[in-house]
Amino acid sequence: MYGKDLQILIQHLAKLPGLGPRSGRRAALHLLKNRETLMRPLIKALGLVEEHIRSCRVCGNYDTIDPCQLCTDPSRDHHLVCVVESVADLWALERAACFRGRYHVLGGTLSALEGTQPEDLKIPQLLERLQQTGAQEVILALNATVDGQTTAHYLVDRLEEAGVKVTALAHGVPIGGELDYLDDGTLSAALRARRNLVI
Amino acid sequence: MYGKDLQILIQHLAKLPGLGPRSGRRAALHLLKNRETLMRPLIKALGLVEEHIRSCRVCGNYDTIDPCQLCTDPSRDHHLVCVVESVADLWALERAACFRGRYHVLGGTLSALEGTQPEDLKIPQLLERLQQTGAQEVILALNATVDGQTTAHYLVDRLEEAGVKVTALAHGVPIGGELDYLDDGTLSAALRARRNLVI
Repeated sequence: MYGKDLQILIQHLAKLPGLGPRSGRRAALHLLKNRETLMRPLIKALGLVEEHIRSCRVCGNYDTIDPCQLCTDPSRDHHLVCVVESVADLWALERAACFRGRYHVLGGTLSALEGTQPEDLKIPQLLERLQQTGAQEVILALNATVDGQTTAHYLVDRLEEAGVKVTALAHGVPIGGELDYLDDGTLSAALRARRNLVI
Repeated sequence: MYGKDLQILIQHLAKLPGLGPRSGRRAALHLLKNRETLMRPLIKALGLVEEHIRSCRVCGNYDTIDPCQLCTDPSRDHHLVCVVESVADLWALERAACFRGRYHVLGGTLSALEGTQPEDLKIPQLLERLQQTGAQEVILALNATVDGQTTAHYLVDRLEEAGVKVTALAHGVPIGGELDYLDDGTLSAALRARRNLVI
């Protein structure tokens, strides 16, 4: 009912995360309906990104310059390295605007199931980088999942050998969260890590 | 935290139906991670569609040829014209593979709220087309919404003047549907249109 070109476009759009065959078709129609305002600008933007955006050789972030603007920003503390699983996590921390150090993107987690070894991640690069730059503290900002925590344990062992201070994000009640809706694991972690209010 | 190019790409991706700022970022990262297998093929497919796919001047479907393959298919009955609101609806009917006539895409519905007049839709073109091709039946396959049904009423008046037989999709219980979960409007429509099983 539609040409081969359109069919191929729908197939590719359907592969984007959050889209499927049905929403791929909707996206294709939306693009055709908005040729000037969306389709052409999107083609241009994709082309520019494809051509210019590279993975930063130091931290793994995506940027037009390599090393990226975060790694070259002199106002950021290079003695403080925050280890994250993915660029998406790095962006999340940057949006929170609460961290002024440098990052290191692992590119995944260790996983026995998927057979991911330390060499498949940027772990050797992390150890080498710490040695070269003389970082004082490594903050593990890994996801609170089984694989994320396995990776954290492994990193703690390796970083202890290297003699660096290692910290991790706190577990606890999310801001705005209601206790009644929290899972048992989070609640007991929050209880164990309770703070002394009157000193 | 990322370059301007990437920011613009995320903004455009976020405008696709079903995506927002968060899923736009996820889509951009997914594309960057799959440069060879997804990003380049997508750019190519978008370029081909932008260049080759046009709106059919007869029915309004999208295709590489104009008139489209549905309008030029001699095996399809041109005495039977199915009127739909959008190309998405045309594709839905084609997927059901139950109709072997021709289509006419209105490009929307009449709407007092949005100020959509008959001239804003392909209604004059429909009347002219029916006169030229001598169609015998027009099937109104408009959405069962207020605007869809307003448009259907208007079309019935205009098509009666033109002396064409006008039919509409049946309302009733969807195949696989459970009565308990159906809305009152559908149930009463199905009851009013009940079929005689023993003749």
